[in-house]
Amino acid sequence: MSLKSGRTLFVLVLSYTDTARIPGITVAGATPQDTIYTPPADAELIHYGHCISIPGLPMTPDGKPTPALLTRAALLHADIPYIVVDAGCVIPPRMPHIHTGIKPGKNIEAGPAMSHVDATHTIQSGEYMGRTLSSLCDNLIIGESIPGGTTTALALLRGLNLQYMVSSSMPDNPVQIKERVASAATSRLNMDTYMDVAVQTADPMILFVAGMLNSTSSNIILAGGTQMLAVLALATKMGHNTKNTMLATTTYVADDPDISFYRQAELFGVPIVSVRPHLENSKHAGIRAYTEGFAKEGAGAGGAIHAAQTIRGDKILPYIDREYDNILHKCG
Amino acid sequence: MSLKSGRTLFVLVLSYTDTARIPGITVAGATPQDTIYTPPADAELIHYGHCISIPGLPMTPDGKPTPALLTRAALLHADIPYIVVDAGCVIPPRMPHIHTGIKPGKNIEAGPAMSHVDATHTIQSGEYMGRTLSSLCDNLIIGESIPGGTTTALALLRGLNLQYMVSSSMPDNPVQIKERVASAATSRLNMDTYMDVAVQTADPMILFVAGMLNSTSSNIILAGGTQMLAVLALATKMGHNTKNTMLATTTYVADDPDISFYRQAELFGVPIVSVRPHLENSKHAGIRAYTEGFAKEGAGAGGAIHAAQTIRGDKILPYIDREYDNILHKCG
Repeated sequence: MSLKSGRTLFVLVLSYTDTARIPGITVAGATPQDTIYTPPADAELIHYGHCISIPGLPMTPDGKPTPALLTRAALLHADIPYIVVDAGCVIPPRMPHIHTGIKPGKNIEAGPAMSHVDATHTIQSGEYMGRTLSSLCDNLIIGESIPGGTTTALALLRGLNLQYMVSSSMPDNPVQIKERVASAATSRLNMDTYMDVAVQTADPMILFVAGMLNSTSSNIILAGGTQMLAVLALATKMGHNTKNTMLATTTYVADDPDISFYRQAELFGVPIVSVRPHLENSKHAGIRAYTEGFAKEGAGAGGAIHAAQTIRGDKILPYIDREYDNILHKCG
Repeated sequence: MSLKSGRTLFVLVLSYTDTARIPGITVAGATPQDTIYTPPADAELIHYGHCISIPGLPMTPDGKPTPALLTRAALLHADIPYIVVDAGCVIPPRMPHIHTGIKPGKNIEAGPAMSHVDATHTIQSGEYMGRTLSSLCDNLIIGESIPGGTTTALALLRGLNLQYMVSSSMPDNPVQIKERVASAATSRLNMDTYMDVAVQTADPMILFVAGMLNSTSSNIILAGGTQMLAVLALATKMGHNTKNTMLATTTYVADDPDISFYRQAELFGVPIVSVRPHLENSKHAGIRAYTEGFAKEGAGAGGAIHAAQTIRGDKILPYIDREYDNILHKCG
């Protein structure tokens, strides 16, 4: 299973969870406070080739660039149209995007992520956007940018009784913190429906994308790692049939020995495309760091690269390197 | 020239101009103050079958319903996907929509509609959305909802030295007020570029949709009356080649003896589809009033009906009547 012939659309779903402010949980931003700017800055970087909401581009505290850089290079190279959705940002992206009125998720260690009313609105918004956008293309690639999102993904999976492990944007996955947060969230559960579980444990991205899947008939490529397993887990509970769905991610997630991605994905019967963009050969140290377990994936990079390489039939790395040159030049 | 086979997408561009607050200029709202709610309410009516921003649905002061009702019936009947753009609303629609950051236009009788910076942003936003959305479909139908928009259309046409007449949502077109406003706006011009003219006379919808045209390769169906002539006038100045563009409107505009629509449209070499939905046979007095010169067109109704009748091969009136029944039932 791969890309169908016809039209391809890339959708980047931006969101936020206050769970990202828990110290040590994410490096998607130079500091926990900075993480609110990462989703809009990712979208701006893809759209403009530079960010507006922040100076420079989103970086880990030790200077690894956001995977949105890979996504931009791939979309540009293959001329793939893209649409950005604000599904719960604190700071909306400064470019034309789909506004949904979805609120950021709350810190799930301290209490529910959202109310039932907000959860329903989030899923319904996803259903409308999924129905509309999937009717316009043969391949709908869905990526995400939500700092702290692997922790809410872990909590949702645990809440649904799936003993999964989740990935990290750090080589040393802060598993203990994530498990502590997930335990706090799931300890509030007691014989609940999947909606109760989602409300207690998830983030708005998971509900929105699950809603998209639930209303969608065309080929869906979930572009991401373990967060997309959480989306699949919720969508399956909602009744989504996964036969037109696939996962695309980078080899840095798929082959991470700590998480057994293939085995975890097997349960959903969903094919996996693992993309190996040979970033170890990059001329930029920040890009080579991806092969050492930093960043790994995000902003739909794996799916965008898969689509670009399929459409163009060549390797993406030179375009990533060139795009990083351009961005460094623009951003000083 | 008609609909191409393949995918059809309907885009409703909402906007606002403070020109609508000039007394007597529009009936797109029960009072001039109410006109700020008409664009979001039109979009909500199409999406939900009822409005959220206002009770009931948009009406003229004497109770004629908004043409968005016709648009909804047509889109529903033929299952045509739609996307709403906020291109300068005072009140954004309460449904997922494309947010652009475009500001409402100012009253052109009193001063420029917008700054040059805002005009450039508006056109660039239109270019991005036009490029993206047109790459996803074979037929891109573009409608608008902007109260007071025929007056800004008239002023722009005059500013570009086109002695056109514009339509009205009233049987007695308030031509004198419109000409007074247009004169005030054009009196500020002096050997200007088309951008200067647009800044002094137009509204954000015209610039946004002209930007969409300017970046678009697929079949465009401009769904509207004389406001779409203003869009064509500006887009042509920007270098848009009209060969893939057509106009679709209702017979109530196309055959209005006061405006000679066909003759005016000829200059642009753009084919016209005039839709005759036989509203005189409606069981609702408010719908029959369209045939007496009320409302006439708006919210892309003519283009949506054309697409629905082409796709489904039947007449739209029973679906309009049924939809009005449903809406009256929902809205009490």
